[in-house]
This record gives sequence, structure tokens and C-alpha cells, in this order.
Amino acid sequence: MVIVQKFGGTSVGDLDRIQNVANRVAKTLQEGHKVVVVVSAMSGETNKLVSYAEHFSETPERAEVDMLLSSGERVTAALLSIALNEMGHKATSMTGRRAGIVTDDKHTKARIDSIDATPIKSALEQGQVVVVAGFQGINKEGRVTTLGRGGSDLSAVAVAGAIGADLCEIYTDVDGIYTTDPRIEPKAKKLDKISYEEMLELASLGAKVLQNRSVEMAKKLNVNLVTRSSFSDAEGTLITKEENIMEQPLVSGVALDRNQARVSLIGVADRPGIAAEIFNTLAKDEINVDVILQTVAHDGTTNIDFTVPTNELGNARSIVKSFEDRDEIRSSDFNESIAKVSIVGVGMKSHAGVAAKAFSTMAEENINIRMISTSEIKVSMVIEEKYAELAVRSLHNAFELDK
Amino acid sequence: MVIVQKFGGTSVGDLDRIQNVANRVAKTLQEGHKVVVVVSAMSGETNKLVSYAEHFSETPERAEVDMLLSSGERVTAALLSIALNEMGHKATSMTGRRAGIVTDDKHTKARIDSIDATPIKSALEQGQVVVVAGFQGINKEGRVTTLGRGGSDLSAVAVAGAIGADLCEIYTDVDGIYTTDPRIEPKAKKLDKISYEEMLELASLGAKVLQNRSVEMAKKLNVNLVTRSSFSDAEGTLITKEENIMEQPLVSGVALDRNQARVSLIGVADRPGIAAEIFNTLAKDEINVDVILQTVAHDGTTNIDFTVPTNELGNARSIVKSFEDRDEIRSSDFNESIAKVSIVGVGMKSHAGVAAKAFSTMAEENINIRMISTSEIKVSMVIEEKYAELAVRSLHNAFELDK
Repeated sequence: MVIVQKFGGTSVGDLDRIQNVANRVAKTLQEGHKVVVVVSAMSGETNKLVSYAEHFSETPERAEVDMLLSSGERVTAALLSIALNEMGHKATSMTGRRAGIVTDDKHTKARIDSIDATPIKSALEQGQVVVVAGFQGINKEGRVTTLGRGGSDLSAVAVAGAIGADLCEIYTDVDGIYTTDPRIEPKAKKLDKISYEEMLELASLGAKVLQNRSVEMAKKLNVNLVTRSSFSDAEGTLITKEENIMEQPLVSGVALDRNQARVSLIGVADRPGIAAEIFNTLAKDEINVDVILQTVAHDGTTNIDFTVPTNELGNARSIVKSFEDRDEIRSSDFNESIAKVSIVGVGMKSHAGVAAKAFSTMAEENINIRMISTSEIKVSMVIEEKYAELAVRSLHNAFELDK
Repeated sequence: MVIVQKFGGTSVGDLDRIQNVANRVAKTLQEGHKVVVVVSAMSGETNKLVSYAEHFSETPERAEVDMLLSSGERVTAALLSIALNEMGHKATSMTGRRAGIVTDDKHTKARIDSIDATPIKSALEQGQVVVVAGFQGINKEGRVTTLGRGGSDLSAVAVAGAIGADLCEIYTDVDGIYTTDPRIEPKAKKLDKISYEEMLELASLGAKVLQNRSVEMAKKLNVNLVTRSSFSDAEGTLITKEENIMEQPLVSGVALDRNQARVSLIGVADRPGIAAEIFNTLAKDEINVDVILQTVAHDGTTNIDFTVPTNELGNARSIVKSFEDRDEIRSSDFNESIAKVSIVGVGMKSHAGVAAKAFSTMAEENINIRMISTSEIKVSMVIEEKYAELAVRSLHNAFELDK
């Protein structure tokens, strides 16, 4: 098989850990696979460089920040390559440039436009291990760019897609995706497999492991993604096409999102297009509105409730206030003490009654559901924050996710 | 004027010093000059990276070492560019690649083959300050190479030559070239100007400031080189063409080289070509033979004496022993307690008596001269090491270098 293995900052955090990564790569080679390794900067290195830049300027030139930050991954790639060569493997390090990764012009948060797979493929054909400096590419003018948060994961997935790798393994300090947060429900179980779609909906469960950006790219490029631990030999979780998962569970996991706040617009003016106007204004300010609920009271006035990420509440509040000032809204209310609990599973598509079971589970625990939103594979419920853990445990139990 | 300013590791040793460099560059810009800055890695950084590489391998792949080491200069270049931008100057950093520096294939000690001056020139025309990461280039395949010790100086001189700069300033922690080592002769004076040829002969005086490699390139490309301190505003020393120095002193400086050892071959076989054979064998082992003295004793046997750098004496000894084993040499003697004192000056060319004055100065101090070698602009004398300082001071005084 051709395997892309990506090791994050913690996994290459010091020289001993880099040696550890070399050993793991060597083991994969000895099993007869061809390997491309993608590495991050040693943990702490990028933050150190950022703080250096900020010493000189609050708004350092983005192109220069990229020149600066891209050096961290080069160091790790070179060191790992040296370690592998010393162990008798032919390894060659590649910068984003040499790996053929071309991005757009948005320095510090560039998007990958294309990958020329030739250099990596021909190195593999020559029996080499390729060690790619993650997180970076070049723009069309040939200047170094970086890919923003989670950028090395993206590099790995994009490379895996470009060379048609059989597997893309993302190594972190977590050994996979769990049915729910084990700190809330100790009976949470590691999932063997999960579909891209479920993973995207379970973002909060994967948040520390994988960004949605990488999952989306894996889905688009049809890359089999595995998240696993670089500190143990435990099998990880395979994120793949729905079709590749034979037994599709009704519910795969329970996700909890505490970082949502509820905005209530009371007495919204009875004027066509007013709702669209409000949400357009929020969208323009890049506020991510999630669950939306519209109710018409018996006196004919309309109320609109929606949730936004807590850190975007301030901006949302000023926009709402501006509508209030213009008497488009009678009054408003903001509540940060809410949580969103979601059950996710591709099995829902073909089974009725999942939502009903979720609601009755809440009812049994006397938890009021304040808002509901559903998709084909997800049921989300907004509840009071103080019930968050109870709700997660009850749902986990009700859908027998510990079995 | 177009000025290339090169700042070494100590000058950019921490963030405050980088700011200090930015201030100095800004001052040069305010005087109306166009500036290209060439920077080294922050001091200690390259050694740290080398030690990382050596953690994994005693003989790390040279191409990977270059990938590793080249990151240090990128960091400094980006930071300096950020600092200059913050001060309102349009600065752009360039890697060796972007600066058009193409080298041969000898990783970790590459030689510059060519520089495409277009990128730097057009940036300067657009009113930008260009900050070049020193010490690095790319080979014909586009892989990063580094230039070895003193590499950033070379980058600066080569760039200055390529863009036709009026001046190439090398900033270090020393404020110029002195008539002799001030630790030996406190009356030593800083030279305002010195010719390339003299500088090459005075290598030991410039050793901490400038490597001969850079002076040779400056000479070849006709670059006016200035060495000065980044910690003071003192004028430095201009190293330039002989023709540019109006008043050529008889003697410019007195150099002392303690790192020479004397090898004596006693009773060399009376066979044609034997001397050539011995010196060819030494050359093959890259032993740098300096002063050579051949004497024929009255009994007809030949003795050959020569000097080699102390750290090459071990190798020289084994080669000599092999000739002894084959009875090509009767016996041999090795003496590390010698020193080479040289007086250097372009004025010697047109003035007789300089050598004679040097010899009589030695005689007055009862210092035996063991070997002599001369060139058009230099007289070197090998003496017992214990007289080294006395010889330097006497010559400095005899040729009135403190005046």
C-alpha cells in the first residue's frame, strides 16, 4: 500500500519523539508499504516564531509571517529524514514547493489550488521515503504560503489525494474518535469506522483531532483517513465513504457543543424580508448562525430565536441592537447558558423514530428542549447548559453506544 | 548609492539587536541610499540545528543538513523585514532562491555559480528594501544548498557584485582591520583602507572579521568591501583595489600566525623527483604546506623543512613516517613551538630594503629567524614561538605603524 502518515507538533515535540516517529515509519516500511510522511513544526516552535514576529509588529506582513513560520516544518522534515537515512532507509525531505503544493495568494491562510504529484511519485518509485514539510505551499509567484490552523493535516490529505494513497494516517496524542467525550461519559467507546458525513457533524468530538476542513477535503478527494495515536499501537478510527462501512449503526456518536449562545428577537416587525435582512447582516459580519427557530405568538407577533458561537455573540448583539434602534425588533434577549447536544448517525436515514427516542430520553430526565434542528443524519437539541452532561450520558445510554 | 549591508549572527543575536539592525538600515535609507540587507541566522541557532542533526547521525545527509540549516537565515530575514515594514519602509525578504543565487551541487559547502540580479534589482527599483537570507542558494535541481563557513559574507559580496552595488558593508562586533592584533600591541591602529591583496596576506588579522574566500570574491567582482561594527558608528576599514588607495604605506600591517608547525626531513634520499613525491602526497591529503626551505649539507645530504597548520600536523607526520619506513628519509623532526610573523604592504613593491629592515629588527632583539618566505607584498619569518609577541611589537614599532 501507499500510506501517508502525518505527525503533529506533539508527536515531533522533541528529538526523542522524532526518533520515535522514525521508528514507526521504519516499521511501516518493513511491512512492505511505500510511505510519505508529513510533519508539523516541533510543538511550541510556531508559537515562538509568532511571538517573535509580534515583538516587532502587531500586524506583521503576512507574506513575511509565512516566510518565518514555514521554517519550523522544514526543520522537522530535515531531522526526520536524517534519522531515517541513519536507519538505512533512503529518505528525502521536501518543502511544500518541492512537493508541488501550489496555493492561492492568501498568506497565512492559503488554500491549496493544486498538487503536482510527480516529484513525490517519482521519489517513491525510486524506493525513497518522502518527508514533506506540512502546513506550507507556494503561490503562483513562487512565494511561500502557509495554510493556517490544521494546515499540516490538510497537506497530508491533499498529498494523499494527489498521489492516490490507499490510506492517510493522522497521528496525534489521541487514539481516535469516540462515541462521545470520555471525560463526560467514561463508558464512551472508540469508533472503528465512521463516515465523512458523520465526522463532519461530530466536529466537536473530533475537534482536538481533526478540523472539518481536512475531513471535507478527504471526502472530496475520497481519501481514507485514519486518526490514531503516535504514542501507542492501538488501531485508530477510519473515516471513509459511507459505502465502505458495512454495518451502519443507528447512532454513531453524541456530540456536545457548549460554545453556543442563544439570541432571541422578540416582536420582529411584520414586514416582508425582515428576517432575510437580519440574517444577511449577520452573514456579512461572518457570524455563523446555527439553529434557527421562528414562532408566531397568538397575538400575531413574530419571535425569532437562533444560536451563534459564543465568541461571535458580541458582534451579533450590536447588529441586533441596530435593528432594535430602528424599531424593527421590539426587544431582544441573549443567553450564553445553553448547550447543543447532537446525536449523529448515517443509520438514521433509513430508520424512523430516532428523533422521537431522543426527545423522550430528554423528557425522562426532565430536560427541556429549547430548540431543535435536524438533518438527514443528525438531531440537535438546544438545552440549558446545566443539563449538558446529563443529556450526553442519557443519550449515550439510550442508544446503547457503550455496547 | 546602492549599499549591501551584511549583519552576522552576533549582530542579529536577539530581538533587540534585530531592531537595532532595522534602525541602522532605516538610517541608511534616510540618507537616500538603496539598501540590500544580507543576514545570518541568530547566533547560536545554526549550532543548535547542527547539534540536532548530530543527535540522529554522525554523518547526516548533506542535502538534509542544508534543508535544516537554511531555516535559520529565513527566520532572521523575515523578522528584519517585519521590523522594517513596521517602521514604514517597504521591505521584502528573499531566500537564496528568490534572490537568484545558484550554486554548485556541493551541499554544506557549495560555491556560488551565478546570481540572477533581476529580482533584487526590480525590488530596489520599486523602492523596496531587500532582506536576503544569507549563507544559502539553490543548485541546478532547485534544492537548497548552503555555502559553508563565512557563507553569509559570500552571499553579500556576490549580491553586491551582481547588482553592481557601490559598497558592501560587513557588520560584525569588530570595528575594522588593525595594523596588528591590539591584544599584542595596544598601539595598533585601525586601517582606513587596505587593498584586497594586503588583506589576503593579513588573513590572520582579519580572521575574526572576514574569510579570505569573501575577500577573494570581492577582488574578483571588484566590490568595495567595508568591515565595521554594528555596535558603534565608528567608520570601518575599506578593502578595495590597490588603485583606489592614494597613499600606499610601505607596510600596512603585521600578522602573526601561531598555528603553524615545522616539519624537518633530514637526509632526504638523493633521487630525482623525491621532493615532488613528498609534497604531492601531502597535497592529496589536503595538507596546506606553507613555507618551504631546502638545504644541502656540506656532506651532500639534503634536508627539507616546511610548515603546516598545527591541526594538520598529525596527518603530515604519518605521511612523513611512511617515507621514513621506506628509507626515503633518514629521520624527521616536528616542532609545534614556532610562529610565523609577516609584514605586509603594497608599498614594498616599489621600495627596496623592507625585508632587510625586518631582518635587522629581529637581529636587534636577538630573535633567530628559522625560515623566510617572501612575496611581492609580504615578508614572512618563522621564529620560535616564545618570541612571537616581541617580534610583532618590534616590527610594528620599526615600521612606525602606530603613527
